[in-house]
Amino acid sequence: MTTRWLTSKEQRAWRAYVAASLLLEDAIDRQLQQEAGMPHLYYSILAYLSEMPEHRLRMTDLAEKLKITRSRLTYAVTRLEKDGLLRRENCRGDKRGSVAALTEEGMAVLERTAPGHVETVRASLFDRLTPEQVDQLEEICTGIAQGLQGDDAQSAPEDVPWRRRSSPSCS
Amino acid sequence: MTTRWLTSKEQRAWRAYVAASLLLEDAIDRQLQQEAGMPHLYYSILAYLSEMPEHRLRMTDLAEKLKITRSRLTYAVTRLEKDGLLRRENCRGDKRGSVAALTEEGMAVLERTAPGHVETVRASLFDRLTPEQVDQLEEICTGIAQGLQGDDAQSAPEDVPWRRRSSPSCS
Repeated sequence: MTTRWLTSKEQRAWRAYVAASLLLEDAIDRQLQQEAGMPHLYYSILAYLSEMPEHRLRMTDLAEKLKITRSRLTYAVTRLEKDGLLRRENCRGDKRGSVAALTEEGMAVLERTAPGHVETVRASLFDRLTPEQVDQLEEICTGIAQGLQGDDAQSAPEDVPWRRRSSPSCS
Repeated sequence: MTTRWLTSKEQRAWRAYVAASLLLEDAIDRQLQQEAGMPHLYYSILAYLSEMPEHRLRMTDLAEKLKITRSRLTYAVTRLEKDGLLRRENCRGDKRGSVAALTEEGMAVLERTAPGHVETVRASLFDRLTPEQVDQLEEICTGIAQGLQGDDAQSAPEDVPWRRRSSPSCS
């Protein structure tokens, strides 16, 4: 099959995307490490749990929300549990499953950390975008995510990180 | 200071961006791990070197191109050197500096791996974007990267990963 090389325009867009995503993640991680001693992923776990009824969510659902493998989630959750910011519980009516629940201390850390985190996201990203570009970014990223997580017919469901067969069970 | 919380529109855009960037990096890394046994960053090092005169570049310049800390680059380069894909040399006229040079084997690995990598980038990203969205993505990402790497007056130069004082020297 002939390789469909990138055009120079696509090459420029790709390199700009890779640069921006690395710099953004670096800025977000640095702020969170300095203020809460945790990387972006760990903060996101606490943030998602805080939005759930009773501040708890099944590990499989949490992995899907975060777009990561269950083994990566398990590793992060173990560290957060050790720090007392969440605890793991058995899922009612499903012995295979496992649930992550935010503790009061986890909620307190989140509330203390959120203002600085949001300020970093705003200063790094939204302060530099016009309202039209915010719409464009959402549309572009939603399309990419839908494609990669098999919301259309092109991807096999087991391709997504949280459903990969090679991942160890989280239960 | 009052926290400038994200609007619901910004929140949606931010979550879509985080999801897309994680899924994209996962897809790119998986393909490269399967075909070349290396993650995206390692591939990018080989790719940048291949574009340089004599296939060589100073470590400090390579870290800036890649938007990473010098310590992260040093770790990756050490592994690539061990695999025979590049070698480190002293920089002419600058004993502090160090230069990474692509080997013939590194070039061969790159040439063998590039078609599959480009196909993944295309299938994951560009096949899902209109030509207008490719322009929008480039403009958005260029703006974000310029802001974060201090091309304007808002950021201090030492904020960027490759110039951070805490990083160990690469020489």
